[in-house]
This record gives sequence, structure tokens and C-alpha cells, in this order.
Amino acid sequence: MPARRTYLDAGGRAPVTARTSQALQAGLTDGWADPARLTGESRQARALLDGARHAIAEVLRVHQDNVRFAHSVPLAAERLLRGMVAARRGRGRIVISAIERDALSDVAHYLAPGAVDVIPVDREGHVEPVAFAAALRQPDVAVAVIQHANHEIGTVQRLESLYGTAQGAGVPMLVDATASVGHIDAPEHWDALLADPSDWGAPHGLAVIALRPQTRWLQAWPDGDDDWAPGGVSVPIALAAAVALQERMENLDRETQRQHDLVARLRTGMERLEGVTVVGDPIERLPHLLTAAFMYLDGEPLVTRLDREGFSVGSGSACGKAAFQPSSVLAAMGALTHGNLRFGLHPGVADQDIERLLATMPRIIEAVRQQMQA
Amino acid sequence: MPARRTYLDAGGRAPVTARTSQALQAGLTDGWADPARLTGESRQARALLDGARHAIAEVLRVHQDNVRFAHSVPLAAERLLRGMVAARRGRGRIVISAIERDALSDVAHYLAPGAVDVIPVDREGHVEPVAFAAALRQPDVAVAVIQHANHEIGTVQRLESLYGTAQGAGVPMLVDATASVGHIDAPEHWDALLADPSDWGAPHGLAVIALRPQTRWLQAWPDGDDDWAPGGVSVPIALAAAVALQERMENLDRETQRQHDLVARLRTGMERLEGVTVVGDPIERLPHLLTAAFMYLDGEPLVTRLDREGFSVGSGSACGKAAFQPSSVLAAMGALTHGNLRFGLHPGVADQDIERLLATMPRIIEAVRQQMQA
Repeated sequence: MPARRTYLDAGGRAPVTARTSQALQAGLTDGWADPARLTGESRQARALLDGARHAIAEVLRVHQDNVRFAHSVPLAAERLLRGMVAARRGRGRIVISAIERDALSDVAHYLAPGAVDVIPVDREGHVEPVAFAAALRQPDVAVAVIQHANHEIGTVQRLESLYGTAQGAGVPMLVDATASVGHIDAPEHWDALLADPSDWGAPHGLAVIALRPQTRWLQAWPDGDDDWAPGGVSVPIALAAAVALQERMENLDRETQRQHDLVARLRTGMERLEGVTVVGDPIERLPHLLTAAFMYLDGEPLVTRLDREGFSVGSGSACGKAAFQPSSVLAAMGALTHGNLRFGLHPGVADQDIERLLATMPRIIEAVRQQMQA
Repeated sequence: MPARRTYLDAGGRAPVTARTSQALQAGLTDGWADPARLTGESRQARALLDGARHAIAEVLRVHQDNVRFAHSVPLAAERLLRGMVAARRGRGRIVISAIERDALSDVAHYLAPGAVDVIPVDREGHVEPVAFAAALRQPDVAVAVIQHANHEIGTVQRLESLYGTAQGAGVPMLVDATASVGHIDAPEHWDALLADPSDWGAPHGLAVIALRPQTRWLQAWPDGDDDWAPGGVSVPIALAAAVALQERMENLDRETQRQHDLVARLRTGMERLEGVTVVGDPIERLPHLLTAAFMYLDGEPLVTRLDREGFSVGSGSACGKAAFQPSSVLAAMGALTHGNLRFGLHPGVADQDIERLLATMPRIIEAVRQQMQA
């Protein structure tokens, strides 16, 4: 790798700060024991785990008793959605937006084969409210799944209105906040919520679930173990996740504005390039994400050449699966489904990194164009 | 907590050495990125993860392609057993020993309700070979589940003979080696194997699965994600797990002998105490575990008073569930099911720790006796 690297693939993962790394180390020193046992070492681990839960609950503006940890977002999504559907005895239909992340849409289709209603979005990625309301009028809807903000294009949903519709229909709403918590204020309108610590700079290996006290959920796992994370989660990672989130929240206003401006600059610069279109809502959006579609160019050589120049960027479907599968998010928006790049900023990205990237892009595009003609 | 503490609750968890802790930190520095993506940071994370898999595979004496990671032992057990049963189309019965850990017996009963055959053990904890063979003669057996060694009493099963029986019956055998790998040589006789890094001193948050190339397994999870660990495991923990195992293996012969001798000394000392019985095979056993049953005394006050004196020991069912639930392992052996302590040694435990413990026990026992009479 070149000596100087600029990581612009934040989203789901982000570089870990020194303070978070120290928290992981402290969590290992004092929290290596099993928090479920009864001796001094275990009490200490339990206290660290409870403290982490408390700190994260504060950011989500819920009581810590309503916050649970799981091992990963897909596992949390499966556990959460399965239990919410089970609690709605007799109702088995899942209503979900067309641009949810794979972790949620895969689980929805797995749990309710043939009974998933996919709600379209408009050109900027907002869920169509009329279609959403119509779907919820069906008598057998168990759960609605709507994201707070999109992990590729950054569009923030109008949750208050959608949640009002769900409440009016008596359908619990699961809000996927895995791309937003730590970047903008946590959402308020939900019955169940998912968040992803490694998206806000924690070491990977934890997912956060929040449930309103009145949200019903039935366990579906062999009796007796931890309902959400059989075997238990890592205490050091939970502590590091809480510290990473605190660090993000302390700087939230400043960083949100700074990254928002940088992404606006990136958007302008990208749109000036020939054959490049930027997708997603330019205003109601996450501060740190931008997706650009490249006409006539494949995503893979763009990523590879940028990587060789020291820029890490994402492409295709942003999380999991084959990295260059066409993006289902862009397809749902009627945008190009090949040749797209996702840029994800984090607090370590500076103005000059974006300027360097924009200065490099024409050369990269030209090289890929020639490569594809060869 | 008193300044000087002796941790004798190793088993499932163990204190983390400085070298392992440094490996975790190095893994975070170089392996924080998503190993499934395509830029330089991700390639580096992937290389660390592959290296960890390779190192662990060597100890298990299998090719690294046959080793998988999952997030925890219960999740790995569920995934493994479900997929093995699914691959045996039409056969749904699970044969399991009476002293398997909860993670396996709970999953077995969950997956095959009413179709689990529990094979008894003798007074020293060995699976009854005649009952095992009889159970396997049934036409609908999908899988046999047998542990390498017991997590409470330490008894090592006679796997070669049991595996011969399973092979003769054409039934694949899952061997739970979560209490043995890192303490004695890895078992040789199995079709699928489970191991637990946090048992050998890794940070908690990883489980290891090994499958023979010919072992059949069918995926049962929403399409497309990592089959074994949806969302992916922690690269730093995987690296730390490999380093912790290497450290254990480098010292295996010496430590096995040393701990074996210390446990023999502990056994003799315990058996001299009035009303105390030590359970499990005194010879064919793990080097580091000992369980003692206390007549007329409850486990909880024993654990609590020892904890106050600076000794961490386990009681009741050794893993998960309510800590003072009667031990199903001891019940299966026809031993006392209340008032038992499990001692688990690790490389940090010295001769004088055991002598101090033995010197303290009479006072503890007398105090608990008086407390219970009051």
C-alpha cells in the first residue's frame, strides 16, 4: 500500500481512534471474565457491560433496560424480526422499504417467504408514503421495517410521518438506524431500533437493539441462554463501543457540519465530471456519505485504481455479499446499477483529502475508460 | 476485592496473557477494516483473519479451509447441528451424551423435540458404550454428539471407540472439544468439531468449527451472508485467539503435567476434608479441572466466602443459565447435585495458591456450616 492512505470507505466500519482502542484494552484488562458468573472478576465485567449499555442507552434516549446487545447486525435483525413477528400471532406479513440493507431484507424474505411487501422510494430515496399506508392497511401485517437513513446514498427518511402511519394502522415499526447513530441525532420514532457500533468507530463484533417497553417480542431460541446473544457478547468491545459513541457525540455538531460541508464539496466536484451522477437527497441526508454513479464505467476498476493511488472507497452493494453485485438501493431508485462508488467520511478525513481525491478523479476515470476500451 | 486474588474459575474463560492482549491490540491496529471488502485495509484484515484460521487449523490438524469461525459456542452449536441434521434428509434423531454442555443439549432438544436420545455415563463420567451403540442402531439417527472432555469434571471420553461405533452405524459424530483444546492434544476422532478460544485464554467472542471434507452440512440462513457468522467475526479477537492457542501449545507438555499434578494435589487435599467427595475420572481427565461435592452444604455461600477470601471458583452448572442451578452433569453421574465447587486452573496458578486454598477450606466449610445452622 502507498505510505499515505485516505480511508473513504467508512460506513459499517470506520477507523478506530486511540481513545477507543485504549477503551478496548482497558475492557480486556478489567472485563475479561464472564459477566454471568458470581465472583469478583465477573462482577467487575458485569459492571463494565452495564456501564456500556447505560452510555449507549443515553444516546438513544431510552432506559438502559430497553437496550440489548447482540453479536452482529444480521444476527440482531434475525432475532429481532423473528420475535416481533412471533408476538403478532396470526399476522405474518412484513412491510419493508425497497432500500433496506441486505441484513434486513434477506431476513424478512427468509422469515416471511412470499409475504413481504416492498415499498418503493422516490428519486431521492424517500419511502413513498401513499404506498406505505396502503400496504399497512392489509389485515395481516406483522411488522414494518424502515431505515432511519440509507447506508449508500445517505437519504434520511421522514420517520415521524411514516411512524404516524404505522401507529394509525396498529403495526409496530422496526427502524434500522445502523447507518445514522453516531452521525446525526438518534431517531425518535420507532418501536424497535437497530444500531451498529462498528459504523461509529467501535471495533467490529457488536450490535445494539432497543425496544420500547410496550413493544412485544417473543423469544425463539433454546430455553435459558441470553435471549439476544447466546454465549454473551464481548465486554471489551461493548466498552469500546460506548467510548467510541461518546467521542462521536462530544464532537457531533462540529463534525456533522464539517463532514456535511465536505460531502457537499465532493458532490459538486463529482457532478462536474463528465458522465457522473450523484444520487440521494442533497439536503435531508447523512453528513458523511455520498454515492456517485459512473456512466459506461465499471465499479471494480475504479475502486482498484483508487486503491492503488491510496484512496479506499466502496462500490456496489455497500455491505456483505459479492462486493460488485449491482446495488439494490440504486436499482430501487431507478438509478444506474453499475459503476458506482460510495464515499464514506469519518473524523480523520480532512479538506485536503477531498481536494486530492477530486484532483485525482479525472485521471482515474480516463485510465479506466482506456482500460475498458482495450 | 482483596489485593491478592487467585482465579480458579478457568474453563470457558481464562485470564488473558500480555502476549494475547498485545495480539488483540495489533489486530485492532491492522485489522479493523471489513475483511470482505476490496481495498488495502480490507486485504490486510483478511490476511490476519486467514492467518489466524491457519494457525488454529494446524493445532486441530486439519486444513485451514475446513475451519470456520462463529461468534459464540451456542451460536456455532446451533448452526452446526442444524445444518448436519438438515443434510441427513429424513433422519431427525439426535443421540447425545447425558453430560454434554447446555449449549449442545439445549440446541439438540430445540432442533429435535421428542427425538433426542440421551446416553447415560458411568460413575466416572464415561459414556456407556453399549447404550451408545444401541441408540445408533435406530434407523433415523441424524447425528451423534459426544464431548471430548467434560467441562465440569474433566473426564476425557474414549473417543476412538465411540467414533468407531458411529462410523459403523454410518452416523456422523459431532465432538465438543470446547473444554479440551489448548489443554490436551486436540481429538482425532470426529466428523465435526467445536472449540472455544475463550476457554484457552483468548478474549471472549469467537467459536471455532471444524468439519472433515466429507462431512455434509446444509446452510439454514438467509441467502448470501457468511454461512457461519452472519455479519462476520472480530478480526482482532481471531488473531488474539490464534496467539493465545500458540502460547498454550508451546508450553503444553510442561503445563499439562504441572496442572495435572496440582489438580492431583488438590484432589487429595479435598478428599481429606469431611463430607467432601471428588467426582470424575482421576486418570483419564483434563489436567486443569476438578469438581468437588460438599455434603450438607450449599454451593452459593461456599463460592461467596471463597470470593471474599480472594479465591474465584465456580459452582453449579458451569456455564450459563442460573449459576446455582443443580449441575446436570453431576446428576447424570448419580453424584450430589447441590453444594459443588468447580476449580479451574490456568498457567497463572502456582503451587502456593493451591496450598493456600487447601489451608483455607476447613475454615470456610466450618463458617458455611454454622451459617446454615443459624
